[in-house]
Amino acid sequence: MEKKFAGIITIGDELLIGQVIDTNSSWMAQQLNQAGILVNSRMAVGDNREAIWKALDSMIEENDLVLITGGLGPTADDITKPLLCDYFGGKMTMHQETLDHVTNIFEHILKRPMIERNTLQAMVPDVCTVLKNEKGTAPGMLFEKNNTRIIAMPGVPHEMKWIMLNHVLPNIPEWYNTGYIVHKTLLTAGIGESFLAEKIKDIEESLPEYIKLAYLPNYGMVRLRLSAWGSDKIALEKDLDNYFNQLKTKASLYLVTDQDETMEQVIGRLLTSRNQTLATAESCTGGYIAHLLSKHAGSSVFFKGSIVAYANIIKEELLDVPHETLITVGAVSKETVTQMVQEVRVKMNSDYAIAVSGIMGPGGATAEKPVGMVWIAVASKASTVVKEFHFRFDRERNIGLTAINALNLLRQMIVDNR
Amino acid sequence: MEKKFAGIITIGDELLIGQVIDTNSSWMAQQLNQAGILVNSRMAVGDNREAIWKALDSMIEENDLVLITGGLGPTADDITKPLLCDYFGGKMTMHQETLDHVTNIFEHILKRPMIERNTLQAMVPDVCTVLKNEKGTAPGMLFEKNNTRIIAMPGVPHEMKWIMLNHVLPNIPEWYNTGYIVHKTLLTAGIGESFLAEKIKDIEESLPEYIKLAYLPNYGMVRLRLSAWGSDKIALEKDLDNYFNQLKTKASLYLVTDQDETMEQVIGRLLTSRNQTLATAESCTGGYIAHLLSKHAGSSVFFKGSIVAYANIIKEELLDVPHETLITVGAVSKETVTQMVQEVRVKMNSDYAIAVSGIMGPGGATAEKPVGMVWIAVASKASTVVKEFHFRFDRERNIGLTAINALNLLRQMIVDNR
Repeated sequence: MEKKFAGIITIGDELLIGQVIDTNSSWMAQQLNQAGILVNSRMAVGDNREAIWKALDSMIEENDLVLITGGLGPTADDITKPLLCDYFGGKMTMHQETLDHVTNIFEHILKRPMIERNTLQAMVPDVCTVLKNEKGTAPGMLFEKNNTRIIAMPGVPHEMKWIMLNHVLPNIPEWYNTGYIVHKTLLTAGIGESFLAEKIKDIEESLPEYIKLAYLPNYGMVRLRLSAWGSDKIALEKDLDNYFNQLKTKASLYLVTDQDETMEQVIGRLLTSRNQTLATAESCTGGYIAHLLSKHAGSSVFFKGSIVAYANIIKEELLDVPHETLITVGAVSKETVTQMVQEVRVKMNSDYAIAVSGIMGPGGATAEKPVGMVWIAVASKASTVVKEFHFRFDRERNIGLTAINALNLLRQMIVDNR
Repeated sequence: MEKKFAGIITIGDELLIGQVIDTNSSWMAQQLNQAGILVNSRMAVGDNREAIWKALDSMIEENDLVLITGGLGPTADDITKPLLCDYFGGKMTMHQETLDHVTNIFEHILKRPMIERNTLQAMVPDVCTVLKNEKGTAPGMLFEKNNTRIIAMPGVPHEMKWIMLNHVLPNIPEWYNTGYIVHKTLLTAGIGESFLAEKIKDIEESLPEYIKLAYLPNYGMVRLRLSAWGSDKIALEKDLDNYFNQLKTKASLYLVTDQDETMEQVIGRLLTSRNQTLATAESCTGGYIAHLLSKHAGSSVFFKGSIVAYANIIKEELLDVPHETLITVGAVSKETVTQMVQEVRVKMNSDYAIAVSGIMGPGGATAEKPVGMVWIAVASKASTVVKEFHFRFDRERNIGLTAINALNLLRQMIVDNR
């Protein structure tokens, strides 16, 4: 068993100008890690011949596998393909199978005439192995140099993923003798990173060299990840379990899940297993909690729906919040969210409900109600819990924190069977 | 005027294992570009001494400015600070002003006892200039080497942003004579990248060397970005305007906006300027359209709310979709979305409404209704437009495409005054 390393190069001026966020390389890194390949570094370069050439030089020198995405499209700013042809000393040739595939896409799926630009998608360097892109027109390409494999893929996420899942990852065990990397993560909420670190200090200091602990804080939660690397998978998993259970015990008061799942996935799992349902009434989060719940497949089993009462008149008319309440104590109040949560639960006939109302900023604050002030209510048939929060961040973060804290409050209610 | 270049290093094992998506570096790239500094490359490395050292060597050699985020936290896996101290040949010393600041945060804001780990946040290399982090406990640090400035900041996004906006970007004009980079972008919808490229081929070929065109496709839209670089800002802007107007004319049929704004921001601007309002009734998007609309500040002016009718019973009870309709033609049908859109518009008394119902996958498909089939309806007081779509992607992308196409259909209705 040898440690095998990979580098990731993402190509495109849009990555350097910051107009798009690179989600491809984190997905690729995740997949490589699961396949037992350690990602050494990731690099983003522009549509610039010299920069790409230099990145290739250093990445190939340092790694056993180099993954490249971007710059394979049909437009003039996509320069990667001819560059790779030069770099690996090849000639561009027509790849008949790809041409047939592209032609078929235009004739039978897009039902549009094909133009010369599209035909060019089927031209590839004669020194590569073509990796079929059944999901698009730009094929993947595999090159080899100094015992390093270099794979170029289009930057369109679902096309890249298809090529990775079908033509790259299945070949890893045959290409490399990688050993095993095993990860376990747990999610905590309601405790800061440094206080958590203090709590688990003894365990952290006792970890053997081949097991690493990482802290991943996000939106009022901290995820702890243990990673172990070795050749004996069974022994490795046993060791990891041992330390992981120690962590779980120490963090038990704040433990949301010991699986690699999100807060909303925990809620979904709990409700699905209990055959229970949920509805939300959202003011300041504007549908974000409903979106978090419904973005995961299978959510229709437990999620009934939401009333997004953004305007006060909607709170009155659809959630029966008394006009009097809105005038006297206001929309951001204990009284308002209590009425919202109880009304939506009854209206949607769900077992549980969440309601939130707050001031997300930057506008909307008053002397008594600053930006970041939020009332959150959760309710079951038997009980209602209402809590005031104060977040101190920008709009996006305040919305995220409101959602996570509301879901965590509900989670506690569900596990306590209240 | 000289071209000045920057490199970005993000540090953290979580970036290489793919557990988090790096949004920091795209934000930093955006800010640097606006300040006239070209970003050469971005690199992500793990919490690994050798890898960070090597990244520093190559980034400092190639750039005038190097920004680093991550690895400054209080936990044992954060190794960046002592490493920087060694790299720049300094000694760790207590920075009194930072210590006072950290103490103050614990005493007056967190109201928790401070532990030794927190005190360590105030230790900095004596060869750096401290950049105050008013938003957190880990300070920023400015180093200089071979005429390159190196700035290390914490990885927590809102802390990094605060340091950038207050202690980095305002100093750029004094540090560098950068010249100007000017960008203009327009957003199109309803035309594929290669067909758009064909339409604007003549303009693209006529661009002078100092103006670059980029295609940024995303969720059924293509953004075109023109970038010009030079020393005479007024002449540059005039040139850019000229080419930009040519692009606008050629793409007019598909033009969503000639500003750097998103589809939902266009809707918000149109409705706000006309003093009109919007409501949504969402099934398959589960509140995502409401979230898109409400995540931007100022949305309460035009967005009244949403009924997320995820379960069919909610469509019946809250949106008066006849039980008969759901049984005969089903929830994913012209009849259902027509009723949903009209009902929510009346119920929320809004000028416009959007309704969507579809099968986002991976489950839920039938022989007649495949994954990706969606019905979208938009309505005003005067008219209703209903359209069937077929998307061919995964759940996340299908939800995004449904939202964008629904918003685009509404946009057309608004600009046509229907």
